[in-house]
Amino acid sequence: MKMIKHFALALSLAMGLGFQSVSAQSLSPNTKWHWNEGTIVVDSPERAPGQTHVLNLTAPKIQTVRVAFVGLGMRGPGAVNRFCHIPGVEIVALCDYEAARAEGCQKMLRNAGLKPADIYSGENGYVELCKRPDIDLVYVATDWDHHFPVAKCALENGKHTAIEVPSAMNLDQCWQLIDLSEKTRKHCMILENCCYDYYELNALAMTQAGVFGEVLRAEGAYIHNLDDFWDWYWKNPSNDPEKLGWRMKYNKENRGDVYATHGLGPVAQCLNIHRGDRFTTLVAMDTKSVHGKEYVEKKTGKPCNDFRNGDHTTTLMRTADGKVVEIQHNVMNPQPYNRLFKLTGTKGYATKYPSEAIALDKSQLTASGVEPQVDNLSSHGFLPDAEYQALMKKYEHPIIKKYGEVGREMGHGGMDYMMDARMVYCLQNGLPLDMDVYDLAEWCCLAELGSLSMDHNCAAVEFPDFTRGHWQDVKGFKHAYAPAEEEKAVEDKAKAYTAAQKEAVAKNKVWDLYDAYKNAADDKAKAKAKKAYDKAVAAVRAASCKACCPGKKK
Amino acid sequence: MKMIKHFALALSLAMGLGFQSVSAQSLSPNTKWHWNEGTIVVDSPERAPGQTHVLNLTAPKIQTVRVAFVGLGMRGPGAVNRFCHIPGVEIVALCDYEAARAEGCQKMLRNAGLKPADIYSGENGYVELCKRPDIDLVYVATDWDHHFPVAKCALENGKHTAIEVPSAMNLDQCWQLIDLSEKTRKHCMILENCCYDYYELNALAMTQAGVFGEVLRAEGAYIHNLDDFWDWYWKNPSNDPEKLGWRMKYNKENRGDVYATHGLGPVAQCLNIHRGDRFTTLVAMDTKSVHGKEYVEKKTGKPCNDFRNGDHTTTLMRTADGKVVEIQHNVMNPQPYNRLFKLTGTKGYATKYPSEAIALDKSQLTASGVEPQVDNLSSHGFLPDAEYQALMKKYEHPIIKKYGEVGREMGHGGMDYMMDARMVYCLQNGLPLDMDVYDLAEWCCLAELGSLSMDHNCAAVEFPDFTRGHWQDVKGFKHAYAPAEEEKAVEDKAKAYTAAQKEAVAKNKVWDLYDAYKNAADDKAKAKAKKAYDKAVAAVRAASCKACCPGKKK
Repeated sequence: MKMIKHFALALSLAMGLGFQSVSAQSLSPNTKWHWNEGTIVVDSPERAPGQTHVLNLTAPKIQTVRVAFVGLGMRGPGAVNRFCHIPGVEIVALCDYEAARAEGCQKMLRNAGLKPADIYSGENGYVELCKRPDIDLVYVATDWDHHFPVAKCALENGKHTAIEVPSAMNLDQCWQLIDLSEKTRKHCMILENCCYDYYELNALAMTQAGVFGEVLRAEGAYIHNLDDFWDWYWKNPSNDPEKLGWRMKYNKENRGDVYATHGLGPVAQCLNIHRGDRFTTLVAMDTKSVHGKEYVEKKTGKPCNDFRNGDHTTTLMRTADGKVVEIQHNVMNPQPYNRLFKLTGTKGYATKYPSEAIALDKSQLTASGVEPQVDNLSSHGFLPDAEYQALMKKYEHPIIKKYGEVGREMGHGGMDYMMDARMVYCLQNGLPLDMDVYDLAEWCCLAELGSLSMDHNCAAVEFPDFTRGHWQDVKGFKHAYAPAEEEKAVEDKAKAYTAAQKEAVAKNKVWDLYDAYKNAADDKAKAKAKKAYDKAVAAVRAASCKACCPGKKK
Repeated sequence: MKMIKHFALALSLAMGLGFQSVSAQSLSPNTKWHWNEGTIVVDSPERAPGQTHVLNLTAPKIQTVRVAFVGLGMRGPGAVNRFCHIPGVEIVALCDYEAARAEGCQKMLRNAGLKPADIYSGENGYVELCKRPDIDLVYVATDWDHHFPVAKCALENGKHTAIEVPSAMNLDQCWQLIDLSEKTRKHCMILENCCYDYYELNALAMTQAGVFGEVLRAEGAYIHNLDDFWDWYWKNPSNDPEKLGWRMKYNKENRGDVYATHGLGPVAQCLNIHRGDRFTTLVAMDTKSVHGKEYVEKKTGKPCNDFRNGDHTTTLMRTADGKVVEIQHNVMNPQPYNRLFKLTGTKGYATKYPSEAIALDKSQLTASGVEPQVDNLSSHGFLPDAEYQALMKKYEHPIIKKYGEVGREMGHGGMDYMMDARMVYCLQNGLPLDMDVYDLAEWCCLAELGSLSMDHNCAAVEFPDFTRGHWQDVKGFKHAYAPAEEEKAVEDKAKAYTAAQKEAVAKNKVWDLYDAYKNAADDKAKAKAKKAYDKAVAAVRAASCKACCPGKKK
């Protein structure tokens, strides 16, 4: 069987059965829609009785965030490394389809002086992992096909869940994650790192301060020629006989903007989506498929007549308040990396690519608190460097101030670390996360809505209201912060926890014991070594727990 | 009566009646359309029996192009000035609603040493002008409301017609101009100067040589904050009681991309539109109206609740061959001037704004005939300056080679002169013009098609086939050139004509006689002075005609 649609998958999981393969598609198997004049209107499920929304959801403070990682191919190892540097975190488990990849990530914990994590592997490794009671957060960085099944399993087992992008592949997955988050009252966060890039964060701060006036239009994109990467994506042995790698295979099988969130996330925050405004109408248009087709033909030596994803996809969305967002996707054609990130406001303009720039006239720059050094400042040109730097400094986002420097040391520009650190901060302080399950749905549904549009000659598609009526309850997008004193206390405990863990790991020679266990010559020796190792780990846990909460009973 | 729709106008012209005011709108009064599933399908008129298309239309060679200008407010005077510098041209008449503006343009002819032109003015001045048998070309640079009526009148009187942009305000005007050009076999050219800008011409040459591979997607725009200009647009006394100026008034009354052609023209040429491919589907989406509304309210002191044009309009179009073009329009918000002009090809990428740049990898640059000076050339970045300049030099467009230098001296960057010089060249050599009436229609219909889309929730709209079945007859867009020898002979005659005219003007003291006639104290003196002046002009004509065709009987 080539693929199991998620309904069958859900069934097989529910029944505790294993399964051969899993492959989500942009078009849900069960989406129902009808024409309203020229507009496609998709049916949306009603909220289950007794269930309420999760806007501004908070959960009890988690002093030490016990995290498990699922998917350790491309993005996962970096996440593990970053979490090694966030205080107040216990890395409980590492899981990948391939055991060696999970095991390989232990080296980061070893290098950091943290205790080893438990290893899970195989197609169903994550199922066992999710059942563990000693995990607070499951961090999902698998291939796209597995984002949803793993996240679903984690939520069903009562874990907070963070999912790499795209966090849901179609409308059905969006709604299921919403329902699960609402039902379990657990966070379900989209790991949209681009919301934490430096320019985007500062531009968000400026937007919120009115520097650009009212932002009427925004652009975002994922334009990234992946020719250097296609062959590196995991080749799922169970559903990729042509060894295309999951990403090329997904592009082959699915139309629509299948990777919209890097472009959409940051601008959606600027536009207060589901915090006072919401997307209402979408249209999408793609070019024909040329490059992907050629790649598949070269790879397989056979003609490819069914490549679904166009080389370049453009999606336009209008909001209830008359704003417009344009999102582009092109991973095929040769051109410089570009996420666009353009904001057109009534009083100013911001653009990140090809180079970061802002246009404001003299009066608006002055009103924004920066005195121009030149007389003839007009918005017909971009700010000179001095004015630009002064503006950036004045509106440097608090998240950058707090995490920016360490972030840069953590690689990938720094945004990934800021994202992870913020998530842990919010969990530790019992605050709403920066991105909720409605963001996840709004940013990920472009693939299916765009497919529906393009499969019907670029028809208009009505955007679902994923909040089911509550998009005006929250007034404006905000990052949550704890009062300074509280924040300090939490941070001190987090640091104490991690310091104690490291101390106890060294004292108990945990990694030596781990190596002895892993390298034991036979089963008997292994069992014995494991016992010694487990004992040391228990000692580490006790010591680190005691250090951070001295008054609390273990 | 606030406005007369063009049908009533046509009627009044046909009946030889004068009229009070004229105001075209983006939505034709008579467009009929129906839904085909989610797509708006507009009815298109059938070609009149016996009438044939005007693809690659040629007209007999015109040795001396006798031109008349209608509309001498903003763009017109520059055109007059440029034609003063094109050999083989006789400027026969100058016409504006306001006589003083027409008269004011005489100074350019005087400075150039050419003979004076005849002056026409008033709302109906152009009607008399068009009836003259001694005019080959009517050059229309009026306000938008008058583009069509003047052009229609010129074509009906058998003149070649060139119309500033937008050259037709709605579908009905597009079709009427097509019908008139097909019926009269006269050229009807859209004066889309941006097709002649340096970067665009060179990029077109590269596109045609395959430097970018197959161009799959293109962007164009008119993004130009007009705050410094709004008050300078003519305030038509008959239909602009609030003195908004015609352009703000037009934006107030009309939705859709009302100024699409600067963005669309150059990329449509790259995509061989109606020369092998054609636009099939359009969708448009605009932001709400903020700035225009505020402007009107400030100007009038009254609330403005009916401003139609959104601050930013985005239009997407797909072609039969699966290419996509995106066009943006924003004349309201503060940001640097931007026509986008981006080409995404299977082998390379070109972008004009904010700075001109091209991305090609090493092998493609080499294949394009330029040897890279650096080893690590990849399309993930833009070409370094040396490679960029070498490429630009290699693909310098023949039109730039011929007219580029003089063009720069003529102002507005040089593209206007190249456009005018090319038009005269083609007329003198009996060649098809660079842009035909189908280009005009395709580039100008975005306003009405976009209005229809946006007034119906951004529905898809089927693009009319303005060629009525012949869009594949011509294979690829080409500029026409005469054989070198023929070209030289024509050019020599043109130069001889102009030199002779100037010589005769000086010899006959034509401007003194003109001044005497204009400044005559009374009717009697005026009549006498006119006689002398007319005689001198006749002498000039005879002399210049004789000089360029010595063997030909006058």
